Parts: sequence; structure tokens; C-alpha cells
Amino acid sequence: MSAHGNGHTVHANGNDYIVPKPRAEWIVNRKKEAERTGDWNMSQMHFARKGLVTEEMSFVAHKEKLAPEFIRDEIAAGRMIIPANINHPELEPMAIGVGSLCKINANIGNSAITSNVDEELRKLHTAVHYGADTVMDLSTGGDIPMIREAILRHSPVPIGTVPLYEALSRVKKVEDLSIDLYLEVIEEQAQQGVDYFTIHAGVLIQYVPMVSKRITGIVSRGGAILAQWMTSHHKQNFLYENFDRITKLLAKYDVSYSLGDGLRPGCVADASDEAQFAELKTLGELTQQAWKDDVQVMIEGPGHVPMDKIKEQVDKEVELCHGAPFYVLGPLVTDIAPGYDHITSAIGAAMIGWHGAAMLCYVTPKEHLGLPNEKDVKDGIIAYKIAAHAADIARHRPGARDRDDAISHARYTFDWDKQFALSLDPDTARSMHDETLPDDYYKEAAFCSMCGPKFCSMNWSSKVDKYNEEVHGLKKNDLTQIVTEQMALRG
Amino acid sequence: MSAHGNGHTVHANGNDYIVPKPRAEWIVNRKKEAERTGDWNMSQMHFARKGLVTEEMSFVAHKEKLAPEFIRDEIAAGRMIIPANINHPELEPMAIGVGSLCKINANIGNSAITSNVDEELRKLHTAVHYGADTVMDLSTGGDIPMIREAILRHSPVPIGTVPLYEALSRVKKVEDLSIDLYLEVIEEQAQQGVDYFTIHAGVLIQYVPMVSKRITGIVSRGGAILAQWMTSHHKQNFLYENFDRITKLLAKYDVSYSLGDGLRPGCVADASDEAQFAELKTLGELTQQAWKDDVQVMIEGPGHVPMDKIKEQVDKEVELCHGAPFYVLGPLVTDIAPGYDHITSAIGAAMIGWHGAAMLCYVTPKEHLGLPNEKDVKDGIIAYKIAAHAADIARHRPGARDRDDAISHARYTFDWDKQFALSLDPDTARSMHDETLPDDYYKEAAFCSMCGPKFCSMNWSSKVDKYNEEVHGLKKNDLTQIVTEQMALRG
Ligand code: SF4
Ligand code: SF4
Repeated sequence: MSAHGNGHTVHANGNDYIVPKPRAEWIVNRKKEAERTGDWNMSQMHFARKGLVTEEMSFVAHKEKLAPEFIRDEIAAGRMIIPANINHPELEPMAIGVGSLCKINANIGNSAITSNVDEELRKLHTAVHYGADTVMDLSTGGDIPMIREAILRHSPVPIGTVPLYEALSRVKKVEDLSIDLYLEVIEEQAQQGVDYFTIHAGVLIQYVPMVSKRITGIVSRGGAILAQWMTSHHKQNFLYENFDRITKLLAKYDVSYSLGDGLRPGCVADASDEAQFAELKTLGELTQQAWKDDVQVMIEGPGHVPMDKIKEQVDKEVELCHGAPFYVLGPLVTDIAPGYDHITSAIGAAMIGWHGAAMLCYVTPKEHLGLPNEKDVKDGIIAYKIAAHAADIARHRPGARDRDDAISHARYTFDWDKQFALSLDPDTARSMHDETLPDDYYKEAAFCSMCGPKFCSMNWSSKVDKYNEEVHGLKKNDLTQIVTEQMALRG
Repeated sequence: MSAHGNGHTVHANGNDYIVPKPRAEWIVNRKKEAERTGDWNMSQMHFARKGLVTEEMSFVAHKEKLAPEFIRDEIAAGRMIIPANINHPELEPMAIGVGSLCKINANIGNSAITSNVDEELRKLHTAVHYGADTVMDLSTGGDIPMIREAILRHSPVPIGTVPLYEALSRVKKVEDLSIDLYLEVIEEQAQQGVDYFTIHAGVLIQYVPMVSKRITGIVSRGGAILAQWMTSHHKQNFLYENFDRITKLLAKYDVSYSLGDGLRPGCVADASDEAQFAELKTLGELTQQAWKDDVQVMIEGPGHVPMDKIKEQVDKEVELCHGAPFYVLGPLVTDIAPGYDHITSAIGAAMIGWHGAAMLCYVTPKEHLGLPNEKDVKDGIIAYKIAAHAADIARHRPGARDRDDAISHARYTFDWDKQFALSLDPDTARSMHDETLPDDYYKEAAFCSMCGPKFCSMNWSSKVDKYNEEVHGLKKNDLTQIVTEQMALRG
């Protein structure tokens, strides 16, 4: 059976199509093996630590152009995860870790105020089309399990959730939350195929007073809900107290932990404070506890951080959380631009990716103002593809700059169609060019409307190339030659 | 006479209004003084070096909340400039230098392909409205002097130009350019009131062969035109050869040099190469030559630079150019996103501003694709206001974070109207909120459509504040208290 030979027919946006299930056979075999051995720990980390290279690891190695053994070793060490629930056969596996390309996550999901299944599926499609590496379904309103089922059954990328939202939706008030209800919710979600859970197990009751110094208090929904639960019951966080029970359940399905930063700063003034780092230390302890059961872990990070404090965020996370992959929201580097927070945060995201964050959670232009629509999702994704790619270039990842070099070459040789094709959003690039020079003729012209033919610098520059060749015998390096040289330098 | 008491009536966009001339009287007095002494060097640097604090310096000191003597000393040392042509009375003086707030420039101007006077005035208005600190008129088509006159007579911000464009527009081919024509053009532009000239005097003939290793050759229009002139005549750059003649002319009108980076990299692959730094060294020598005549200088920088090489750009500039203010285009940190280069470049701009660039030249979404329209100008400005502000925060400039803290406080207290009012683009912020919750009622609601009332974290957080106060006696710091503490820390 080919990797894409198994699938089911679904109906979306008025069209029937088959969603491939590349993992279906791998999972069947894995379950058979478990029946034989009685070892039902299904996590990639468990296999890696036994020295095995799973099909998911091979798949990832091929995509990332890395050795399968390297992937295995990184997973075994906890520096990389492959979020891949055994009940998510539609998944095309991907890896999150400092050793692989920088990834981006897109949040979708409805709220009680707005959105429905069709709209969420459209957002999923847009997110995956423009390059989201994972998607979180943060639905808090309507039929949450039904929306999630639709998303999972259509998604080739890992799906994450915050199970506390569904738990809260099932009770009248925060005080009614309990570990039993929570375990019920996560078991159901794990059975459906959710690949990672954000779990705010590090928000401890003793950290709550620390937020009184802040301007924006607790801005994580999970963190605020748990703080409310703890302070009204005068009890410790039930996720912290029952962490091992949760871990055992996650191991069975290979759901990865995304340890939530419930006390992340909600404005630049609150960044890197006592509350944030106290929680981060606890997350590091929980990481080691999860690793005892070979459960995969990544660590969530903030939020809002001024540029001069961004590197410190990564350094602290690596130190306190033993190298577990860092999964960061933004961060926004200023608070003054609601409506443009995809930009304020792409600045921070690019920088933190460069310094070692493994995955960047996008922020859309609608942040702080309302639920993102499909256009917001697209704008958020593009900003974050830019950030993650810029981070890969700055980290000198092998081959990261190849696409830049190819597009630059197309630009210099006035190959407009190629320039558009190589860009993150070809339609937008083309339509902007069309705005002033719509005729096909101009798609081969040696200028554009910015400078016009008499002032086009690249046009003049190509004449200078002739001089260099005729007078100095210096041939203009063509792209093939340059890329070859670079490959050689990389060794 | 009040600073705004003198002006002329102009007609724009169908409305008559008075453009104030805050500098009119200062300039009259200064000319009278020159007639008495015979010293016609009108540059701010000349006065600063004589120990004088001009009205422009006082004005800037007041705006920047800095001591007038500090402004004077920075200008005398060449680390700061006030671009302020004595024939631009409409100007509200501003300063460019590492000791003052980070500034942004917006490029407007037509090309042979598109745009007219009215459209350029609308772009000017949009640029100034959204916060451009200076504007460059890069017109290359139509009646260039007429467009420039209209822009100057309406502009409260310094206007820069690249005089080579007008020079080229007056001849048939590049080879016909000459120093005599060039001097004629800059004298006319200086008389009109242009505040700074981009002059590519550092592109030397011996540097031309260095670009043969590049993917995108020479991407500066001025640089490419001069390279073409030099290589066809086999002669040295006539701007370099006649630099002192140009300097003398600039001193008379107090036009500042913006020494152009004709060999700036046009893609990330070409960043920080031999050609770029060879030219930068020459610009440093020319800086000292200009300073001999007390002419103000800033240095232009690239362009396209990967994140890991951004700090080096500033360090080299400061070293080679003796601390003259660095005026940087972008830089773009990746080449793969035409249509979104306001974002790819805002990342680099924020970082280079943090590391010490004094002014950031915006890049619009239309970069590489066509001439920006009014919407592109706005999008470029907003992205660069974000970058410059983030840089000021990261540099810990006194008071830089006050607006962030105020908006964060408004956010936490659900004062939506105040949040919109404090934002860079209030209309956009409000309309995004209106999209899902248009009723006035919701402008006081303790939630928005993102999380909805049951999941609004800030809503829960305010309940936690009560717990902290009642159980621990910890009062939530209100903004006044926090800002006061911060002011105290600053000393
Ligand atoms: S006209 Fe200007 S922007 Fe357009 S291709 Fe030529 S150099 Fe690039
Ligand atoms: S609902 Fe969510 S986004 Fe809206 S104000 Fe509350 S915490 Fe902020």
C-alpha cells in the first residue's frame, strides 16, 4: 500500500475529495506489535529511546534532509518532538526542535460569539495552504467535539488543543472543574486524534500573588481559569497534583505535552518577571517527570517581550527546561499597534526563532480585538512564514537561503513569472505588479513602475556586468555557480 | 510673532488652508546676522561648533525632552543632524541621531509610468499624518521641480531628494551627465528648500568589479547610473572628484548630506560583502571632508541583510564613519515575500534601530513590484512606526514605554475607546473590533469576540486581583503607581 493509498471521502466547501491517511498502515502494525509485547506506550520518544527509527522519524528525516538517526537521537534526548497521535492517520508527520527547520503554528477555532464548522474548515485550509506546520483548535463555543472531529479528519498537520476549554464548557462555573472531568475530556480528545495538548500544570497557587505587580495580570485563558479555581478553593492546581495520571494517558496515544505558560506576560512592561520565571522553573521539573514515562514535551513561551530581553527568554528556557523545544507566541515587541500585531509580533518571532525557538505561534492582525477571520489567518501565516524563514537563514541552516537566492536571481534577470512563483504569496505579488503594468508584455520587461525604464537600477547594472566581463574578464556569477560554491562551503 | 503666525494659503484636495511657517522669523534674523558678519555658512553644525544653540536646536530639545546643550554638542560632534534648509520655513525641526528617538522616512514621488502632483500631495499628507519624520521625493518623471515645489510648500517635515534623478531627466543618456549640470540642479533644489540630498559620492570606479560576485549587482538607482557613467567614460565618479564644490554649496543653504550607499546589497546573499564595505570606508572619509566645512552628514545603509549580520552593519558604520547618524533602508531579512516587504524589512529595521541606527527608511508592500500608492504608503509607515518604537523601547529611552503601559492598562480595564485612541491607527483598531461586536454597548464590555465572556482571561484575572488583595493584602499596582516607580528608577 502506498503512503497515500488509504483514505476516506469527505465533503467540504461543496466538493468531495479524499483525505489521504499516510500513517494508517504504520499505526496498525504498531498496535499489533503492542498486543504481542504488552507495551502500550506509543510515544515516539519511547521508540527512540529503545533505539528504533519509526516510520514517522524516517518521514521527517526525508522532509528535513537530515539523517533518520539524528532525528531519533534528538527525540530520545527530548530536544525534538514529533506530535503524532496514533489516532490521527491523516497526519503527515513533522518535527519540532532546534535541530530542524523553524516551524509555525496557526490558531483557529470559534468562540461563543462567532464562527461555525464550515468557517473553521476554511481557516484550516487557508492555514495549511499558506504553510502552517501545526494548527491549534481553540474552540470554546458551540459543539466543540464536532468542530474538532471535522478539523482532525481534514488535517495533514498536527492538531493541538487546550482541553481545559472543553472541560469548562461542560460545567456551569470555574469552581466545578475537577480532575475527573478533565481526564474524561482528554481521553476523549486523545481518542479522536489530537496530537498535542496545552496543559497549564505549572501555574501554582503560590505564584498567584506575584501577578499583583503586573499591569495586565494573567492573560493566558488557561492560566486565568486555573488561578480562579485555585483561589476560590484554596487548593493547588489539580493539573499539577495529578500530572502523572495525565502523563500515563498521553503515553497510550502519543499525545505530546505543550506545557502552557499560564503566567506569560501580557504586555512589554510585564515581561521576564518573577511570576513568569517561577512558572518556567516548574515547567522544567514537569518536563523531567513526563520524560520518565517517555512522553514528548514542548514548552510554551510568551507573549509580549521587548527586543532586548528576547535572547534571555530562550537561554532561560533551555537551561530550566533541559532543552525541551520552545514554542513561543510572538512575542510582540510593543503594545501600541492593535490591528497590526501580526507585524509587532513577527519582529519578536523572527528574533526568538533565530535564538533557538523551535516553533512560533502566529498572532493575527485581530489579536486583542476579536476572533480572527479567514483573511486574518492568512495575514498571520504569511507574517510568520517570513519570521520562521528569516530565523532559518540567520541560523545558517543548510539550504535555508536557496529560495532567496533563486528569487533574487529571477529578479535580477527580470523573470517576473518566476519571481512570483517563488514568492510566499504568488497571487498577491502578481496582482501588485498588475496594478500599474497589467499587460503580459510587462512580465518580461526589464523594469517596473517603481523606477521606470530610464531609472531601473538592475537594468543599468546588467550593462555594468558587461563592462566587468569585457574590461576585467570578470564573469557575472550565475546562480548555479553561486549555489554550488555555497554548498561546497557548507561541506 | 508666534511660531505658527506666518504662513501662506494653499489649495490641496479641494480645501484652502494655511501652511504654518514656524521658522520664517528665525531665518530672517539669521540672514541679517550673516550680512553683518559675512559668514554665510548656515549649517546647524557650524552654529553648534561656535557654541550656539539655534532656535531649531531648542525646538528639537523641547520635542525630544532633552537638554538644548546636549543637542548642540551632539550636532557639533557629528553624531546628530537637524536637516533644515534655510529656504524651508514650513519645517518643524527634528533631529536624527543616536541620542534622540529613532526616526522613520517615507519615500514618495512619481516615476515615468505613473502618478501626478495631487497623488503625491496625498501621499505626503498620509505619510505625515501617520508619523513619517522625514519624506523623500524620489520623483523621476513628469515635471520634477513642480512636484517638489508643491511637496516642499506643504511639508512640516524635512524633504530629501536624490538630485541625480533630476539631472538624468534633463539629459538624453547617462553619458551626458556632468558635474556642471549636477551643480546647477542641486543649487536649484537647495534654493527651493530641500533639506537633505542623497549623494552617491562613494561609488568609486575601482569598486565596480567587486559586484561581479553578486546575485543582484547594483540595486541603488544612483549607484547603477554612476557605475554606468564611470565605466563608459573610464573616469572616476564626478561626485567624488568634486566633493568640496558640492560641500560649499550645501553649507550656504544648510542642506545635509545623506551619503548614499550606491553599492548596498540587493538580496540577503549579497549582504556585507567587499563592495559594500569598500564604499562605506570611502563614505567615512567623505564624512570627515564634509565636517571640515561644518556640513551635516548622515550615512545611508542597506537594504537586504540576514538577522545575524545586522549588528555588524551598525558597528562598522559607527567605526568607519566616525559616529555620523546611520540612515538605513529596511533591511529586509529575507527575499521570499514580495508583496509583504514592509514586514520582511520591519523585522530588520527594528533590530538595526535597537543596535543604533538613527533613522529607518520605510519599505512598502509594493517594493520590487511597482510604485507605491497611498495605501502602500500608509502600510509602510505603520510598519516602520512599530519598528522605530520597538527600537526605542529596547534601547531603554526614557519614557519610550509610557504609551505601551497606558494602552496595556486600558486593555486590562476594558477601556476600549482609550485603547483605540492610544493605538498607532485608531480607525483600524476600532473597525476590527466593530467587525464582530459593532454595538456601542460592547465598547465597555469586559470581553471581546476572541474568547467571549466565559473565557476572557483578563476578566478572570481581575477576580484574581481581588483574591490577592483580600487574602494577601497585595493591591494591584495601578498604572500611575507603576509609571511613577519607573520614572524614579530612571532617575
Ligand atoms: S524598475 Fe526599480 S523596482 Fe522595478 S525592477 Fe527595476 S530596479 Fe527593480
Ligand atoms: S476576550 Fe480575550 S482577547 Fe478579548 S479582551 Fe478578553 S482576554 Fe482579551
